[in-house]
Amino acid sequence: MGIEDLRVNGARLRNSLEEMAKIGATPGGGVQRLTLSDEDKRARDLFVSWLKELELEVIVDSMGNIFGRRPGKRDDLAPVMSGSHIDSQPKGGRFDGILGVMSPLEVMRTVVENKIETERPLMVVDWTNEEGSRFAPAMVASGVWCGALEQQWAYDRTDLQGKRLEDELERIGYKGSVPAKHYPVHAYYEYHIEQGPILEREGKTIGAPKGVLCLHWYDIHLDGEANQVGPTPMEGRHDALVAAAEMIVKVDQLPGKMGGNMVATVGEIHNHPNSRNIIPDGVHFTVDIRSWDDDLALKAWDDLKANCLGIAERRGCPIRIEETWRVEHSPFDERLVQRVLDSAEALGYSSMRTVSGAGHDASYLNHVCPTAMIFVPSIGGRSHVEVEDTTWEDCAAGANVLLHSMLKSANEV
Amino acid sequence: MGIEDLRVNGARLRNSLEEMAKIGATPGGGVQRLTLSDEDKRARDLFVSWLKELELEVIVDSMGNIFGRRPGKRDDLAPVMSGSHIDSQPKGGRFDGILGVMSPLEVMRTVVENKIETERPLMVVDWTNEEGSRFAPAMVASGVWCGALEQQWAYDRTDLQGKRLEDELERIGYKGSVPAKHYPVHAYYEYHIEQGPILEREGKTIGAPKGVLCLHWYDIHLDGEANQVGPTPMEGRHDALVAAAEMIVKVDQLPGKMGGNMVATVGEIHNHPNSRNIIPDGVHFTVDIRSWDDDLALKAWDDLKANCLGIAERRGCPIRIEETWRVEHSPFDERLVQRVLDSAEALGYSSMRTVSGAGHDASYLNHVCPTAMIFVPSIGGRSHVEVEDTTWEDCAAGANVLLHSMLKSANEV
Repeated sequence: MGIEDLRVNGARLRNSLEEMAKIGATPGGGVQRLTLSDEDKRARDLFVSWLKELELEVIVDSMGNIFGRRPGKRDDLAPVMSGSHIDSQPKGGRFDGILGVMSPLEVMRTVVENKIETERPLMVVDWTNEEGSRFAPAMVASGVWCGALEQQWAYDRTDLQGKRLEDELERIGYKGSVPAKHYPVHAYYEYHIEQGPILEREGKTIGAPKGVLCLHWYDIHLDGEANQVGPTPMEGRHDALVAAAEMIVKVDQLPGKMGGNMVATVGEIHNHPNSRNIIPDGVHFTVDIRSWDDDLALKAWDDLKANCLGIAERRGCPIRIEETWRVEHSPFDERLVQRVLDSAEALGYSSMRTVSGAGHDASYLNHVCPTAMIFVPSIGGRSHVEVEDTTWEDCAAGANVLLHSMLKSANEV
Repeated sequence: MGIEDLRVNGARLRNSLEEMAKIGATPGGGVQRLTLSDEDKRARDLFVSWLKELELEVIVDSMGNIFGRRPGKRDDLAPVMSGSHIDSQPKGGRFDGILGVMSPLEVMRTVVENKIETERPLMVVDWTNEEGSRFAPAMVASGVWCGALEQQWAYDRTDLQGKRLEDELERIGYKGSVPAKHYPVHAYYEYHIEQGPILEREGKTIGAPKGVLCLHWYDIHLDGEANQVGPTPMEGRHDALVAAAEMIVKVDQLPGKMGGNMVATVGEIHNHPNSRNIIPDGVHFTVDIRSWDDDLALKAWDDLKANCLGIAERRGCPIRIEETWRVEHSPFDERLVQRVLDSAEALGYSSMRTVSGAGHDASYLNHVCPTAMIFVPSIGGRSHVEVEDTTWEDCAAGANVLLHSMLKSANEV
């Protein structure tokens, strides 16, 4: 049997995912495995026990990132790494993150049982606190590992009960002694559910994102004039919520107007005094604009900003705009992206180039080593919800693409 | 000097209002005198002491309503009554309510010092908990007095700390023994600041509302589909907040479309999960429609409802509509309204017919006895805010209109 005939064990991968789904299982069929919770610890312990069964070297670093390492024939060469996260959203699904940890584990099991030796070392990793649901921000431990965030700052993040991230790392026994600091990595692959509807809509099994969209966050604050609604005629009102409503409609129209693969969303709104019979005198809402084209996103913002200023002027509602956060679009390594597509083709899976609208640990890794991702379809495009689902066939297909992509990279000298 | 030359003492009225404004004074120049609070008790005690100085009969009923009664020559005849409320909004102004208690007190002082005897008894009243800010609903004690609300139900209303209205009445010593139950009243006048901009805009000193607008409350609930914003294309989204925004714009356009003196407002909105990077999957907002014309308000609702159903359908956001509350428009007693206008004319004040957009204790009284109101201008139309203001001249003008309206009614046999 040639190496090209090698396949992961889909049933074993499914079993690993089902075992993990029991830890923090919710009545609605999802999981709640908040970072550094008791559930996270139990899932980590299980993961570590599986790494040890394979006799891999287990490394826990100072951010609680867990690495399983299998030596290469030339063990001095930079490793090929793949991973994602074990933690989940408060009411998350059974695939987000964990699929990208169990699959490289399955890759390890496959190469171990088939006694495949690779030139370079292979590594699987679980990154601490990808979700950011308990400790903001998201992707904090891969951020520290890649040198983008300060470890002490990360340690001092607190949850809603005021518990510190570092203290919780120590409490569950996952504050390791190895510094969380990046070193040369030959290739990093992250395998993840798509969390969107495009693969399903296009009827494709494998998505190879060419990179991560740019991300622009804005905060818009509007003042109005609070008055009792009954005695205050419509003429002369300064209703901050009506002004905001007009702006929200403009945000929604923006992608259609600008073209490209832009998305624009208002997710959050706060209204003051939020009383049924008082005209709103203060509204704060957020704007999230994402696109593959940074310039188009900036042009969209110029257009939206002009509209907002016009609406605020016309309604006599003073406006304050914060340009809160801008991250440029980030293309993945083209050779690795092509390798994902080639592996899919060789395996007989339909595939397409796509983009990643969401951030992943891969977003940070992409700044320190050649990086690519593998997507498989999310049923109905749903994610971050208990009904999140992906077929077992697609789970195995993505794992096979990961296997062959990792093997090709691991045999490059 | 004929009775038509009688005038209240504007300086004394101002002094009473200024003394009251010290009780619960806020740094912003307003007052916080929440119902049945220690501040309310101090203001009540001061009011009662002033009633006693005039040797009026002081009656406290089982809802804490405080009446001061001056006998008539024919004391068996139904009295002429005027009052409003001492309690305030959390950050209320120095005129809302208290002007309508201090002014009939000033009328009493004027008739006492001028030894004016009237055929009918005169009464001044402070109604408990008009605002409803601490214990919902508003106007609860006049509602009980008029037989529209059950006293036990009113007693069981609780504030945010879970304290019962009855217990707080007892705590401050204002749970009286006289049943809170209406009896024949020959005429009820309520004097209040306009709380709107129309008198100022029209350059008139006195407003005589022909009645209270109808009031229709609706609650609209929208479902959406929560997904991460980045990977979810615009096509196929079910964004409950965008749907709500389109509806809010329609609410705002409604009065212009329907004509008449309609107002329509969305004061309250709740968005779920209200997270910057998740498409909203649940929005609840309120609609408040008021008009002099009940049928026009219903037609407006039909129009709005059709628009909302269309928007919900187009956006794939299931909608649930509650028709929460409908109160028909309530015309005041035309003879008393005309008497207010005639008194203003005789006193040389400019005046106009208007409507009351807000509810007042007079709304309940209007169902059990002939009722009218007197409005004076609110500077800038502002009210329920600390900057609420009315000139001292206008305060005295309204009190003089009240004096002569009450005297005319009190001498009708």
